[in-house]
Amino acid sequence: MLNGVHWIAGESVSGDRLFHANNPVTGERLEPGFPEATTGQIDSAVAAAVAVHESRVLFPAEARGRLLKAIARNLEEALPQILERGVLETGLPAGRFEAEMGRTCSQLLQFAETVSTGLFREPVMQSADLQREPLPRPDLRRRMIPLGPVAVFGASNFPLAFGVAGGDTASAFAAGCPVIVKGHPAHPGVCELVGEAITSAVEEAGLPSGTFSLIHGESFDVGVGLTSHAGISAVGFTGSQAGGLSLWRIAAQREVPIPVFAEMGSANPVFVLPEAINESGEEIAAGLAASVLLGVGQFCTCPGILILVRDENSEAFKASLSRELFQGPAGTMLHQGIHAGYQKGLQEVAERNGVELVGKGPTSSGSCDAEAGLLAADARRFIDDPVLQAEIFGPSTLLVECDDLEQLLQVASVLEGQLTATIHATENELADHPQLLARLEDRVGRLIFNGFPTGVEVGESMHHGGPWPATTDSRWTSVGMSALERFQRPVCWQGFPESLLPEDLSADSGSGIPFRLDGKWHGRPSI
Amino acid sequence: MLNGVHWIAGESVSGDRLFHANNPVTGERLEPGFPEATTGQIDSAVAAAVAVHESRVLFPAEARGRLLKAIARNLEEALPQILERGVLETGLPAGRFEAEMGRTCSQLLQFAETVSTGLFREPVMQSADLQREPLPRPDLRRRMIPLGPVAVFGASNFPLAFGVAGGDTASAFAAGCPVIVKGHPAHPGVCELVGEAITSAVEEAGLPSGTFSLIHGESFDVGVGLTSHAGISAVGFTGSQAGGLSLWRIAAQREVPIPVFAEMGSANPVFVLPEAINESGEEIAAGLAASVLLGVGQFCTCPGILILVRDENSEAFKASLSRELFQGPAGTMLHQGIHAGYQKGLQEVAERNGVELVGKGPTSSGSCDAEAGLLAADARRFIDDPVLQAEIFGPSTLLVECDDLEQLLQVASVLEGQLTATIHATENELADHPQLLARLEDRVGRLIFNGFPTGVEVGESMHHGGPWPATTDSRWTSVGMSALERFQRPVCWQGFPESLLPEDLSADSGSGIPFRLDGKWHGRPSI
Repeated sequence: MLNGVHWIAGESVSGDRLFHANNPVTGERLEPGFPEATTGQIDSAVAAAVAVHESRVLFPAEARGRLLKAIARNLEEALPQILERGVLETGLPAGRFEAEMGRTCSQLLQFAETVSTGLFREPVMQSADLQREPLPRPDLRRRMIPLGPVAVFGASNFPLAFGVAGGDTASAFAAGCPVIVKGHPAHPGVCELVGEAITSAVEEAGLPSGTFSLIHGESFDVGVGLTSHAGISAVGFTGSQAGGLSLWRIAAQREVPIPVFAEMGSANPVFVLPEAINESGEEIAAGLAASVLLGVGQFCTCPGILILVRDENSEAFKASLSRELFQGPAGTMLHQGIHAGYQKGLQEVAERNGVELVGKGPTSSGSCDAEAGLLAADARRFIDDPVLQAEIFGPSTLLVECDDLEQLLQVASVLEGQLTATIHATENELADHPQLLARLEDRVGRLIFNGFPTGVEVGESMHHGGPWPATTDSRWTSVGMSALERFQRPVCWQGFPESLLPEDLSADSGSGIPFRLDGKWHGRPSI
Repeated sequence: MLNGVHWIAGESVSGDRLFHANNPVTGERLEPGFPEATTGQIDSAVAAAVAVHESRVLFPAEARGRLLKAIARNLEEALPQILERGVLETGLPAGRFEAEMGRTCSQLLQFAETVSTGLFREPVMQSADLQREPLPRPDLRRRMIPLGPVAVFGASNFPLAFGVAGGDTASAFAAGCPVIVKGHPAHPGVCELVGEAITSAVEEAGLPSGTFSLIHGESFDVGVGLTSHAGISAVGFTGSQAGGLSLWRIAAQREVPIPVFAEMGSANPVFVLPEAINESGEEIAAGLAASVLLGVGQFCTCPGILILVRDENSEAFKASLSRELFQGPAGTMLHQGIHAGYQKGLQEVAERNGVELVGKGPTSSGSCDAEAGLLAADARRFIDDPVLQAEIFGPSTLLVECDDLEQLLQVASVLEGQLTATIHATENELADHPQLLARLEDRVGRLIFNGFPTGVEVGESMHHGGPWPATTDSRWTSVGMSALERFQRPVCWQGFPESLLPEDLSADSGSGIPFRLDGKWHGRPSI
């Protein structure tokens, strides 16, 4: 069933420098081996993608919608094989794969629906006014076009929803860009299966094969080769800060720099104010522990820092939190690299001056099994030591204890960029401290009240992004329909007659795309 | 009238390391001297701007609109002094200052109008659905907030419209960001006068003085200090490629990199096809010469490369072009640096292998007076030698002669990123070569048919941008209302009760800002 191949412009391609995935539960090496992409293979994939972009075959909305729907269909069909292999490669439970497949396909179909409405492309036109003084006004028509071939680096922690057919790929296709995915080496089998589903979908949608390629690589060289290739126009990445920032730097050093949209996770601070602890400390502690433990802490929105004020209730809160965190083994992490990184990160922070290791949970015997961790530090230490802000990717959290609300505000002021910040408070309590909201808003992409940061809704109001270093560019989201805006750019056509205009810039073509002409919308749903 | 001062958070501030502007016509040094900003002065300006941003006083649309209108009013009043000094500092005719003041004020008022409609901020909201399976949906509300303090580097060639109160400043204020302008050292007197007008406007609008600062500097250090300051969130720049790319690199090396929106000009290639030359060669040659000579060639949209096919009419076209270009002195350039750069650039390209200097125009006797230049090269040479694509900032153009339309398409394929590309052709002729449009569209921000690239309309359909190296980010425009989108970013508020929401995220506040709630627009003008 699995052949250990790249999918390059419609062809399955093998190689001889092989790497293998491992079963994180048993430590066993999984067959088959997968090839490292060569420079020549990267060139072939990119050349095919460039040709597709230049042909403009992905520009029409209809082609993009057809492709997205075909991918969703093929993925659903391939679920049994993907699930079977995925459980072996990731240690994730089968139910998680089913749920993630639901999210992945619904995301593809949402993009297909959005594309069909013409939203996000929306041309804006102004008619010529040749009588205008002092100078005549030319006919001007502006619309978005796809940026060009996009390189996607899938995440290890969401092998489907942020993987080969995940949000970055779906949004790049929705924008009309050919895609080349560098598969995550921790689950190459899942990558091959999903890549096969997309390759078939491209053919079924009647599109040229260069629309999609999947290449494998365990070494950093493959990612470097892809990101620095002159034919690549943008990069989508979900993963670690080290990985994302490396790609960003490579892209910035190109002769023609390109945008790298890296969503790199963050520490997702949670502020628990005194009245909230007083009113419902137990419940908040239970919710926070569940959020820390969710997916064995391997979510980019895992709450890694909890800030509270030391008072007569805070010790009880801390005890509840320990109890909830340590009630059982935290589970199997995705692969040895993540597992080792978690242990190292936890130890490094625990050894910082003024940090106390409050406790560790039990563990079970699997090769990548993790134990939950709870650290604590005085706010003064936290404010002075930026190392304490580092994301420890895994099921641990750092309790930061403040003398008073004034110091809690100081903690808010030194935070680096975050995907999210959460506040637990009573309504009155927070109304008395509006500065907290302002300070946090300047540092995050999403603010949460009396909730938990894990669980990222796919919807038009979501923003999954945030200031550096949570992402490389705070103005974009990697979740939700707006994600496609990352992969397009405006072009203005001036003075062209109707016969020479592209369909979507013609007011008379009947393309069905909503447009704005001389200040008035045409065909835009009034909803 | 002029005091040789910075305007730092409402105060006029002098210094002792002084530099002077020169009159480009007479070469005479102009009094007074202007101070180089010190590190301490940069710190003061940025600290004041950060405090204003954190106070959120610029977030309400009403405050932003009031400020923009007050600036336009004060500038109009200061026109006589600005004009008197501006003519001395730039050599530009008085009429040019009047026209540019019109554009500058109308731009400010357009932004005020746009801000008042709430467009570009448009919150998108989804109500909670606590019954949803498998998980309840939280209440989610997303809207744009200002990025934070913006550093603006004004251009020398549009001392008003792209200067201290130009498009970058206006759009940053419109987005709700405090602004610190680094004035252009070629016209510090104009900068001081415009800075004074803005400083008064900030006070009249009842806003804190840190909303705006103007600092001077002739050395590169001042720009470096400002761009690398931790309190700056974004940079707007209009000017040379060398200057823009330097700032971009400095910003990329910061601990927290920030976006630099640099509009750096380009060679703006013009393709003149055989039938167009046959039908109206004389007229096109006259139009192109006028476009090359406009503003002594000191426009970022100056057509610096003309591509045509060698045939029985092309020599006559070349002769017409020479005649039109060389019929009089080209005029006085803005300052000695630009004048010297023009002469050097012209000579460097003229000395490349295979390039012919077809001719130079007459010159007059001013210290910065320029002569028009016409260069020619075979398309083969152009394709092989990237140096021939460099923008020569001034009144010259390079004629690229092709054997046939196939070779002309090859020329289109090797072009680097451009603000604009122009095609002169008959409708049938271009319809026969659709590849030309596709290849050019991938390389430009604006395509022009049977027109000229100079003259950038301020309107909602305009796009003044383009792929690297014309700008640092092809997805944004520096002209038109969309320019404000560069300086804001989305934030999502999850689960907040009405009482804790900012006014513009409340569906009930009656703020007048249009919003989308559960898929339906409220208060958005249906035009």
